[in-house]
Amino acid sequence: MGKKVLLTGFEPFGGDKLNPALEAIKQLDGRNIEGIRIVTQQVPTVFYESIRTVTEAIDRHQPDVVICVGQAGGRAQITPERVAINIDDARIPDNKQQQPVDVPIEADGPAAYWSTLPIKMIVSRLREAGIPSAVSNSAGTFVCNHLFYGVLHYLEKNKKKVRAGFIHIPYIPEQTTENGDPSMALDTIVKALEIVAVVSATTEKDIAETGGALH
Amino acid sequence: MGKKVLLTGFEPFGGDKLNPALEAIKQLDGRNIEGIRIVTQQVPTVFYESIRTVTEAIDRHQPDVVICVGQAGGRAQITPERVAINIDDARIPDNKQQQPVDVPIEADGPAAYWSTLPIKMIVSRLREAGIPSAVSNSAGTFVCNHLFYGVLHYLEKNKKKVRAGFIHIPYIPEQTTENGDPSMALDTIVKALEIVAVVSATTEKDIAETGGALH
Amino acid sequence: MGKKVLLTGFEPFGGDKLNPALEAIKQLDGRNIEGIRIVTQQVPTVFYESIRTVTEAIDRHQPDVVICVGQAGGRAQITPERVAINIDDARIPDNKQQQPVDVPIEADGPAAYWSTLPIKMIVSRLREAGIPSAVSNSAGTFVCNHLFYGVLHYLEKNKKKVRAGFIHIPYIPEQTTENGDPSMALDTIVKALEIVAVVSATTEKDIAETGGALH
Amino acid sequence: MGKKVLLTGFEPFGGDKLNPALEAIKQLDGRNIEGIRIVTQQVPTVFYESIRTVTEAIDRHQPDVVICVGQAGGRAQITPERVAINIDDARIPDNKQQQPVDVPIEADGPAAYWSTLPIKMIVSRLREAGIPSAVSNSAGTFVCNHLFYGVLHYLEKNKKKVRAGFIHIPYIPEQTTENGDPSMALDTIVKALEIVAVVSATTEKDIAETGGALH
Repeated sequence: MGKKVLLTGFEPFGGDKLNPALEAIKQLDGRNIEGIRIVTQQVPTVFYESIRTVTEAIDRHQPDVVICVGQAGGRAQITPERVAINIDDARIPDNKQQQPVDVPIEADGPAAYWSTLPIKMIVSRLREAGIPSAVSNSAGTFVCNHLFYGVLHYLEKNKKKVRAGFIHIPYIPEQTTENGDPSMALDTIVKALEIVAVVSATTEKDIAETGGALH
Repeated sequence: MGKKVLLTGFEPFGGDKLNPALEAIKQLDGRNIEGIRIVTQQVPTVFYESIRTVTEAIDRHQPDVVICVGQAGGRAQITPERVAINIDDARIPDNKQQQPVDVPIEADGPAAYWSTLPIKMIVSRLREAGIPSAVSNSAGTFVCNHLFYGVLHYLEKNKKKVRAGFIHIPYIPEQTTENGDPSMALDTIVKALEIVAVVSATTEKDIAETGGALH
Repeated sequence: MGKKVLLTGFEPFGGDKLNPALEAIKQLDGRNIEGIRIVTQQVPTVFYESIRTVTEAIDRHQPDVVICVGQAGGRAQITPERVAINIDDARIPDNKQQQPVDVPIEADGPAAYWSTLPIKMIVSRLREAGIPSAVSNSAGTFVCNHLFYGVLHYLEKNKKKVRAGFIHIPYIPEQTTENGDPSMALDTIVKALEIVAVVSATTEKDIAETGGALH
Repeated sequence: MGKKVLLTGFEPFGGDKLNPALEAIKQLDGRNIEGIRIVTQQVPTVFYESIRTVTEAIDRHQPDVVICVGQAGGRAQITPERVAINIDDARIPDNKQQQPVDVPIEADGPAAYWSTLPIKMIVSRLREAGIPSAVSNSAGTFVCNHLFYGVLHYLEKNKKKVRAGFIHIPYIPEQTTENGDPSMALDTIVKALEIVAVVSATTEKDIAETGGALH
C-alpha cells in the first residue's frame, strides 16, 4: 500500500500578507504522486500552538513522513534543514505577541535533534530537476526551528516510526517586487515539494554527498 | 497600424551553457501582443560584431522600438538600464577572445547615452504584475553596455526615430542549482519581456517616480 | 613646488550620526604627505549647495587635484568612481528636504563626465598597501553623483586644468555594530585617502588594467 | 587570584596564506588584561588533531575559560557561536587531506552542545565598544565546529568546570584586497578578543537579550 506524507505550512507572520509555504501546500492537498498520498495541515505561527497543531495532525493522519515547510526570506534555494536546536530566541513576536528569549523549547529535551529526512538525497534530486537547493545547518531560533524541534521530540518521546524534518523555501516573486531579495516561482516550489515528498517516502538510506559549510 | 518591437538576446558567454536572454526572446519571436508585433535577433557576445548584428536587424526590420536583453548573473530583479557609457573594460574575454581594457566604444561618441525606453513606467508595470524590478544605473563595461551604447549611437548618428534600451535579466533556476545565486523562472522572464515590449511601444512619456540609488 | 590636493567630505545624512568621509578628511587637513599639501572642505549633503561649496573652495585654494569623498553604505571596498551622470533621482530627501526625481543636474551639460583621477592606478596602489579596492561604474543618483558631476562640469566650463574625481568609502565599524553591513576601520580609510591623494597628484597617465564589471 | 583564559587559533587552510585567528591570538599571548591572564595555543586545521592539541593545552594550562577562534570568511561581524553539532561534513579537505562526509565527531556524543560562554553579554559589550557583533547559530560542519564540539565533549566527559566556546572572526583587509568580501582590521579583532576574554572570565550569568534569527 502507498505511503502517506503530511505536509505542513505556516500562516503569514511578521507583517507579511502571505506565506509561500502555505500557498504551496494548498496546491498539494489530497494529491497522489507516484503512489504517495499527500495530506496537509495549516499551522499557526505561534510558539507551542504550532507544535500542538502538527502533533494532533500526526495522530489524526498517521502519516509515514512529516515535512514541515516554512519561509526563509532572503534565501535563494530550497534548503532542507539538518538539525533542530532546543532553544527559542525570537527576534520578532509570534502571531500571538509572544517573544521568548533564550528559553528551551522542552525543558527535558536534548540540545538538538537531527532531521530524519534524507536531506542529501533531497538536494541531489532537486538539483537534477533544475531546482536550486542546498543543505542548511540552521533553521534559526524562531517558530520554524521551534516546530521542527517540537515534532521530532514528540515522535521520539512517543517512539513513533515516522520520518520528519523541515524544509525552508524562498519568498515568491510577489513578495519581492521592490526589495531586491531573491525569490522562487510558486510553481517551482510546488514541484520541489512534490520531489521532497516522494524522495522522503521512498529513500531508505540517505546518500553521503558533501553538503557542508565552512562556517 | 500596430507597432513593431525588435527584441535581441545574447548567445551564452563566459563558460555558461545557455543564456536566459536568448531562451526568453526565442519564445516571443513572431508573437503579436496587444497589437504589438515582436521580431527577434540572436546576438553574438562579441565586441562590435554585436552592434553590427543589431544595427543590420534594425535596418531590415525597421522597428519602432529596440530592446536589447542580457543576463546579469547575481541580480534578483528585471533591471532596465538607465545609461550606456562609452567604454569597454572587459573582465573576461568575449566569445572571440577579445578583451579590451579602457578603450572608448566610439572614438567620436559622447561619454554616455540615456536609454530612451520609459524605464520608470516599465518598473512600475512589472511590479504591478508581481514581477521584481528596479532601475539599474550601470550596465557594466562588457558586451552588454557595449551593445547598448552602440545601438543608441547608431540611432543618434542616423537620426532614426527609434526608441532603444537595455534590460538585464537574472539567471534562470537551471543555472543556479548549486551556487546560491538568485534566479527567476523563464516563464516569469518571458512575461516580463512581454510587458516591457508593450509598455515601451505604447508609453509616450515616462513617469517621474523615485527609482534612484544612494550610490 | 609641491602640489596641492583638495579633499572634500559630506556631512551626515539619512539619519546617520556621522559620516566617515568627513571624519577621515578632518584627520588629513593641513597635512603634508610626500611633498603634497592637503586642504579640506566640509560639504553640506544638499543638492547644488554642495557644488557651490566645493567650487568656491576650488577658487579659494586653487588646488591641482580635487577628490570628493562620500560614504557608500554596504560596500566593503574603497571605490574610485569612473563616471558621473547628469541626473538627480533621490531615493531619500537631502539635508534640506529636497528630493528631485529624474531631473538633469545641468540643463546644458553632457550626459556624463569621466573621472580625471587615475582610477586604475589608485586601485592598484591601494591593493598593494593591503587595502580592499575596486573601480565602481556608478556613483548612484543622489548628492554624491550630483557633486561629482557638478565639479567636473564647473572645471570643464571654466577650462580649469584641475584633476577631479569621487571616491566612495565604506561605513566605519561604529556605524554597523548591529546590522551585518561591511565596514572599514577609520585608520584604514585615512591611510587609503593619503594614498589616493599622492597617486592622484603624481601619476601622469593612468594604467590600463582590467577593472570592469560584466553588468 | 586572577583567572586564566586559553585562546586558540587555527593555522591557515583552504589555500589561504594566513589565518587572522592565529595572527590575533599571537598578539595576546602572555598578556594580562584587567587581571585576566591570557595563554594561547596554535591549532592545526586538521580533524581530531585539532581537538587533541587543544585538550592537551587545557591539561597543561588548567585555564578557567577556553575560547577557540576561527576565521569565517564572508562574515562582517565578530560572531560568538551558540551551538556545536556532532557532525563532520567537509566541503574542502583539511590540512591533512581528510574530507569526512556526514560522520559523527563522537560516536557516543549527544547531537549538540551549547557554548558555555556568555554569548549575549559578549555581543552586547562588543557593540558598546563600537565593534560589529552578533550571535551565530551555526559554526558550520568543518574543523571549526569539529573543534568546538570536541572541546565541549572533552570537558563534559571529564567533568571539568571550564567555560568554553567558539568565536568566528571576519577576514582581515589584506585577505580581501580584490574580492569584495567584508573584512575587519586586525587591531579591531585583537581588541574584540580582549573584551571576549574579560567578559567570559568575569560574567557569572549571561543576559537574556534578543539575538535570534528567523531562519
